[in-house]
Parts: sequence; C-alpha cells; structure tokens
Amino acid sequence: MTDTNLVSLWPYEPPGMRHLGVIDLGSNTTRLVIYGYVPGRAFRIEDAIRAPVRLSEGMADTGVLRARPIQRAIDALRLFRQHADAYNLTELIFVATAATRDAVNGEEFLARLRAETGLDPRILSGEEEAYYGYVAAVNSLPFSDGLVVDIGGGSVEVARVAGRHMGQASSLPFGAVRVTERYLHTDPVKKGELNTLLREARDALKQVRHVSGGGAMVGMGGTVRALAKMDRALNPSPIDDLHGYVLPKASIDRLIDQLRDLPVVRRSSLPGLSSDRADVILGGAVVLQTVMDLGGFSACTVSNQGIREGLFYERFLTGGGPPTTPDNPPLLDDIRAFGVHNLVQLYGGNIDHFARVRELALSLFDQLTPLHGYGEFERDLLSAAAWLHDVGVVVDYWEHHRHSAYIILNAPLPGWSHPELALIALLARNHRKGSISLGGLSGALEGGDAERVEKLSALLRLAEYLERGKTGVITGVNVHVGPGWVQVEAATRGDAGVEIWEANRNTDLFQRAYGREMEVMAVASPTPTAP
Amino acid sequence: MTDTNLVSLWPYEPPGMRHLGVIDLGSNTTRLVIYGYVPGRAFRIEDAIRAPVRLSEGMADTGVLRARPIQRAIDALRLFRQHADAYNLTELIFVATAATRDAVNGEEFLARLRAETGLDPRILSGEEEAYYGYVAAVNSLPFSDGLVVDIGGGSVEVARVAGRHMGQASSLPFGAVRVTERYLHTDPVKKGELNTLLREARDALKQVRHVSGGGAMVGMGGTVRALAKMDRALNPSPIDDLHGYVLPKASIDRLIDQLRDLPVVRRSSLPGLSSDRADVILGGAVVLQTVMDLGGFSACTVSNQGIREGLFYERFLTGGGPPTTPDNPPLLDDIRAFGVHNLVQLYGGNIDHFARVRELALSLFDQLTPLHGYGEFERDLLSAAAWLHDVGVVVDYWEHHRHSAYIILNAPLPGWSHPELALIALLARNHRKGSISLGGLSGALEGGDAERVEKLSALLRLAEYLERGKTGVITGVNVHVGPGWVQVEAATRGDAGVEIWEANRNTDLFQRAYGREMEVMAVASPTPTAP
Repeated sequence: MTDTNLVSLWPYEPPGMRHLGVIDLGSNTTRLVIYGYVPGRAFRIEDAIRAPVRLSEGMADTGVLRARPIQRAIDALRLFRQHADAYNLTELIFVATAATRDAVNGEEFLARLRAETGLDPRILSGEEEAYYGYVAAVNSLPFSDGLVVDIGGGSVEVARVAGRHMGQASSLPFGAVRVTERYLHTDPVKKGELNTLLREARDALKQVRHVSGGGAMVGMGGTVRALAKMDRALNPSPIDDLHGYVLPKASIDRLIDQLRDLPVVRRSSLPGLSSDRADVILGGAVVLQTVMDLGGFSACTVSNQGIREGLFYERFLTGGGPPTTPDNPPLLDDIRAFGVHNLVQLYGGNIDHFARVRELALSLFDQLTPLHGYGEFERDLLSAAAWLHDVGVVVDYWEHHRHSAYIILNAPLPGWSHPELALIALLARNHRKGSISLGGLSGALEGGDAERVEKLSALLRLAEYLERGKTGVITGVNVHVGPGWVQVEAATRGDAGVEIWEANRNTDLFQRAYGREMEVMAVASPTPTAP
Repeated sequence: MTDTNLVSLWPYEPPGMRHLGVIDLGSNTTRLVIYGYVPGRAFRIEDAIRAPVRLSEGMADTGVLRARPIQRAIDALRLFRQHADAYNLTELIFVATAATRDAVNGEEFLARLRAETGLDPRILSGEEEAYYGYVAAVNSLPFSDGLVVDIGGGSVEVARVAGRHMGQASSLPFGAVRVTERYLHTDPVKKGELNTLLREARDALKQVRHVSGGGAMVGMGGTVRALAKMDRALNPSPIDDLHGYVLPKASIDRLIDQLRDLPVVRRSSLPGLSSDRADVILGGAVVLQTVMDLGGFSACTVSNQGIREGLFYERFLTGGGPPTTPDNPPLLDDIRAFGVHNLVQLYGGNIDHFARVRELALSLFDQLTPLHGYGEFERDLLSAAAWLHDVGVVVDYWEHHRHSAYIILNAPLPGWSHPELALIALLARNHRKGSISLGGLSGALEGGDAERVEKLSALLRLAEYLERGKTGVITGVNVHVGPGWVQVEAATRGDAGVEIWEANRNTDLFQRAYGREMEVMAVASPTPTAP
C-alpha cells in the first residue's frame, strides 16, 4: 500500500476537553488511567496501564515495606509519570492505599518516591478508600441501598449505603495479599490454615455491624473481578462486560472449593484466572465469602470501577477544589440518563433527530398504554433505545441497526443491568427492517421479554418512520384505539409525504405486535411552526 | 429519564464535506442514496431509501409503460425528491435505465415526471449502464480482469474488463422482470416455458463474444444479491457483508432447481428471498446461469455496488464536469489502501500514532523475512491492520482490540476478499493482551492462516508497545537475528522507558510465534530529532 499523509476529518479533541490522570498505588497492583472529559457533560477513558508491583509483598508480619517491592514501585511509577507526561494532562491525581498507609517505613518510602519520581501521593485513609469506592459504585451501577465491599491487596473496605448516601464505613486489614501472607503458608493450602483465616476474618467482620442491614451488595477490587471472570468463563453470557455482572454466592462457594484443593501452579490453568493473581485469589475469595455470609447476601454485583473512578467523578462533577466528603458527595443525578447522554454526545450525529424519535416513541407508548399495559420500566428502555438507535452508523450505514446493538452491548452504559442492556440493544436492532431478530441475545431474555421487544420495537420503528426525513416535519401524534384498529394522526408542519408513506408501508411489525390494523394519517398541525 | 438538551462534542459535518444524492429509476426498483464526501479523500453513505416501483410492469409485450407503474414511479419520485431536499445536497443526480429508455411512450412519461416532480432524468444508454457498473466494480472489488454482469429488471449489461479498463460492453433485453413477463407465464413454471427462456437467452448471449475470455466474474443487481443472500442463508459466514461474497455456480444451479418447482407464493418462504422479488427471481437466475455457462465461470463475486456507486465515484474523483468515458474512467489508484485510509480519516483519532505503528511493524516484518518467509500478501495485511488497530476505541477503550475487529469486519473495506478481512480483523484483535484469540473467525481461516495470525500479530503487538506512549520516541528498529534469539535495537530520540519496559514484558507472543527469545534495547538515535 502507498504511503499517504492522512488527516482526520474531525478534530480528535473536542473543544473544552480536559485530561485527568489517576495513579493508584495499591498493595497488589499499581494503575494509571487517563480520562478525557468535558466537566459535568461527557467523558471517555483514553488509556490505562498497570503493573503488578505487589508493594505489600513480605510486609504482613513486620509491617515493613521491603526493598524489592519498593524498587518495583519506584520503577513503575517513574514510567507511569513519563507515560502520563506524554498526555496533555490537566491534572494528575496520585493516591496510595493500605501498604503505604500502614507501613512502619512509609515516610522513608515516600521520601524516595518524591526524590526519584517527583511524585507525592495523597495517602488515603481506610475511610477515604471506602468513600471513593462508594462514589464509583453509586455513579455507575443501579444501586442505592446496601453494601459496597472493596477487597484490595492490603485492606478490605466495607461501606453501608442508604438512599445513595454513604453511612458507616470501615477498613479492615484483610486484603488478599495480606491474608495470604499471614494465614496461608502451605501449598496446596492445609485445612487448618484456611480454618484459622476463616475464623479470624469472621471474628473481625462480625465487629462491623453495618455488614448486616440488607439491600444489595456491590463488590469491587481485583479479587472480585477475578472471581467474576472465572465464573463467567463457565457461564458464557452474550454480554461481555464485567461491570454489572451478577456473581452468585453459590458460584463463590464452588470456586473456593475448587481453588482450595489446587496448588498455586495449577490454579492459573483455571479459565479466567491470571497468573499474577493465582497465589492470592483463595485468601481474597474467603474474605468475600465471609462478608456475604455475615451480611446474608446471595449475590454480589461486580463493579469494574473503584477508587480511581471515584476520584475521577469528584473532578468531573466538582471541576476542582478540595476533596468532597460523605456529607456532600459528587453524585450524578440520574446515572442511566447520564450514561445514555454521554454516549450520544460522544458519538454525535443528528442529535435533534434522536430527540424527536424519542419524543414520538414515548408519546405513542403513553397513548397505547391500554394496549400494552407497560409502565416505567419499559418506558425507560424505549427512551434509551430511541436516543441510541442510530449510533451504529459510525460503523456503516447499511446494517446500522445491528451495529447500534453491538455498541449498546459493548460501550459503557452505567446504571443498566445486563438484561436491561440486552433489551435496549434489541430495540435498537429492530428499529428498522423486516421481522424481529433476537440476534444471539435470546439467552439473555426472561419471561415476557420477547413480547416486550416486539411491542416496544414496533413503537420505535413507527417513530423512526415518522421522522424519516430527520426534519421534524411531524410534530406530534394523536392515537385513536378502536376495536381491531389503531389510527395514528400525525400533526405536521409541512409536507410529510415521505414520513406518512414510510409509516404506512411498514405496519407489519405493529400489526403483529398489537394484533390490530394500524394506519397513519397526516393532520396539519393546529399551531404550525415555521419550517 | 430526564429531558436534556444534548449537543455533540464533535461537529457532525467535517469541513469541506459535500452531499450527493443519486436516484436510480430502474425497471424493478427505484432507489435514492445520499453520499457524504470530501472530494478524492473520504466518503460515507448517509441515507438510502428504496421503492419497489416495478416501472416495467406489463410492458414486455407492447413496449408501453403502463398507467399504474407510471403513477407508482411518479409518487415515489415525488417523495424521493422531497426526501433529498431535506438534506443539504450539493447535487442530485437522477438516472433512468431500460424501462424508460426502451418505452414507446417514454417521452410522455418524462413530460409528466418533469411536470409533477420537477425531476428530469439522464437516460442512460445500455453502454452507459454497463460503464457505470464497471466503474463501481473496479473501484470496490479486488478485480482487474474479467467480466462485469449487471442483471437489472429490464436489461442485462455485460462488460469485459482488462487491466481495470473496460473493453467491449453490451446491453441485452433480458432483465429479470422482462424475461419473466415474456417467457414465464405459468405458476409453478412449466418446463417448456423455462426451456424457451433458456434457449433464447443462450442464443442472444452467444452473440456477445466478450462473455468468453476468462478472468474473474463480478455480478451485480437485485437478482445476484438475492441469490447470494439465499446461498448465504444456507452457508452462514462469520462475515456478514454481501459485497465480495463469492457465489459458486453450483449454488446458483441448486437454487434454480429449487425455485423451479415452487409456486411464487411458496418461494418467499425460502430464507433470504424477499417477497417483492419472489416472482422474478427464477427468470433472472436463469439468465445469470446462462452467462456463467457460456463464459465458463465457476463462481461470481457479488458486488453490492452498482451504477449508483459508479456515478458517485465519477463525482468523487472528478469533482464535477462532464461525464467520463471508458477512455478515461475515474479510477481509485489503490482501492485497498483507499478503503483503509477512508476509514482512518472517518474515525480520526491519533493518526500519527497509527502511521508510526505501521512503519515499525513493517520494518520488523521486512527485517524478519528470513524467519517468517512471508511476502507482499502478508505485508499488506499487516499494513492494513496497523492503520486500523485502534479504531475500536470509538466503542470503548477497555476491549478496544475486540471492537476494532468488529469494525474491520463490518465497515466498508473495498478491495479485500472476505478471508483477507478476517485476517486483518484477527491481527487487530490480537494487537494487545494475552494469547492469540481467533474469536469466532476460525471458520474463515485457511491452511497456514492460524500461524500467519500468530506471526503477524506478534509484530503488530511489538510495534504497538514500541509506540506505547504514542509520542514517536522510538524512531526505528534494527533487528539482529541469532541462533535461538532475536535482538531488537530501538533507536530513540528521548526517554523510551515505558516503551522498552512494555515491549520486554510482553515478549510471550513473539517467542511462541518465532520460537526464539526476544529482547528489546534502547539505542540513542544517531540522528536525534527535536522532540
């Protein structure tokens, strides 16, 4: 192929975009994530790099950071700093957690860090770690009441949440690396050692009264993600995203049974488990199991986000200033709407058209309530699908309904459960063309969902045809329901010939979904707007 | 969800973009396609609308356009005009083909068209139809010598192509609608009628000497697309795009056997066949079969593009002016490179990074030729994958290698065969993270391809890590191959710590692919460039 100087048709950087780097020096893993964002409006992840530093290695007994892990941390952070500098960062936030906080020689480590990397971390207290984990959870999952559990390498944070606000929060020295070093010295692990860990974890967590109290449970941190990956490897799902994955307690119990009989070298052969976590996974899993036992949780919703994202949301929503506190946390008003709007703004396109299709679809939905009997749940799905039905044109026009479904399943859409995402994707997929297709997602559907897809897609498709020219020529709909028929009066502010024609030649899906003849007719708008 | 005024972060319209509408009034179908383009640089399809007007209905015997089809055409064109007007078009091209051209009352029809829609078509001659089909084929398929066959509703065009230039071209009155009306009056079709069609089509096509002459065959038009869809429904492929699909002659023979025993009403139940083509598919298929028999073609590569795209390429490449001719056709220099560059420019992102990854990957490829023994074929695949490896970030950062593969398989990439597209997608998919994944595409691979994916992905991955900071800090590579080892000297123009570290901690794939230890070391660039 010939060499060419290519130039993007669009600017890579939209006006007003800032870049935030967040480095998180954990006890097991160190990570840098780069966020691009327009404050309060939209964001995307631009880069991420991780190093399995295991800073807390060998410190469980003495509390002393050892020379080799310190060197690994400094080497990694020097590189992260250099990598971050290659971005045009507005700000670089650097936090350190349990290993640094608890180390007897923490000050010496920090002095070397400053001298050799120029970086000076904010040391998060256990409560602050719990707080930023909570901020990430309530801003990215459909979760307002229950418990957020963050199992790190050094510590475990447990935060009670009520009405999206954080109540009591605790930090315990039961992170995956620490409990492995303190309790599990044999390989494969001897029963006695495991029982000691179980007993001591149970005794410690029993003191944390707010573990009980019901609600849902959100789990985060490397241990939880690894267990979820292992569980998903056995139960493939059409939705690949780990964020929002529901990990049943029964799966955790089964994985622990499996892990406890295996020596470390054989654990990495288990599908989904990476080799740099194989040695500490059992210890972390037992702690998770204990929390769930004590709290009476039958499942844990996995958060792929954690304190890094908590710190990001703080900047995204406050713009700057001092750290927030649990009294006044940075909360997105409506995370479902935010996620949808975030994607709409990142993808761009004809946003006015999306908004009009949504208005028409919701108006049809509301007026046809006597026929479908659906409520807020279905209305929200229809609204999200209407916003996103055309995002797939970024891939190609011809089959853009299929590409929209792919993007909805694979782009970040916080706040929606996996079954809800499958439904939104199917509505977008069926917003045009032929009969209903469940395209590989039937496994994600539950009772009544196939009918839901048909009935809601029929409304989205009708709304799309009523906006066929993308000009807003149809300003509203007035629906009349009779015995065996539905008449849709479309109020127009100009010649809506294409729209009426397209709507009337594509009535099959509606008729199948609602079992009635449907007809659309134009009625000049009573209050015509200038074109 | 709350109502919000959303604004795209990016302008929908890049500077300099024009919009071209092309209306094609065929004998069976009428279509409008809207193209957005920056002349000579990049384009995308923005909208398309079709109406099954069947203008030639009932004219086979008398040559007279009938009143009802005329009314359907005028109604559809009035709507198309209105729809096109909703776009900010730079130009609207309107062409009409066989039915209009051949009609006894063509002038009366055109007068009504002008009066009632304001539209005045350019009537394409049979040779012009053949020419624009040829222009579409050579600008969108890996095809330079052979035959382009366009089976329309009214006529069939047959154009000989040598060295990407059009030689002899003919148009015959054997389109699918016309032969059905003239020869096939019974349902299911009687053997005698079918034999008459076969004999007459054969006699007519025998006169067209340039049907013979070898090379490859490209088929276009509704009949070919419908047969390809029917064949693909029986032979699911991991690549969904019809453009470039290879339809074997044996499949066409089998489909004809199947169709000839079925009455029209039962044909539409065949997977892939739409009801508005069920009545004319058999006639069209028999004509296609006859061309292939006479030309000795064992398969036909399907073009989803046709005269509309030929007309588009003319505008795209000439900008304006009078129609081109076979002496000086509008040809993309290198359609494979053009398609890749088109996507790169449409997606944007950090194009300098893509270009540098590509240079490094190709330099590694060239210097390691003694180890892999690959040639131009593999080099081109690697080049395309390097340009496109990051397009998936448009969906989400975390699994962007998977999303890049999806986009490569689903976005328009003319000039590459389906097996080549599968390979490019797999290189992009494996440009980062873990061991090689064939992600559902193993069915598209042939002998040696799995090894090809491993060996080429290893180079792309190494190049990507050498450009980890996306800053161009590594300006070139110098490869030393020894017994059992490979040393890569990376010429740097600054601190390439992250790049060297990432490259050296991700050597697994390279070592597996080439069976040798690999090590990367920095060497200050002999001719340092200012940062």
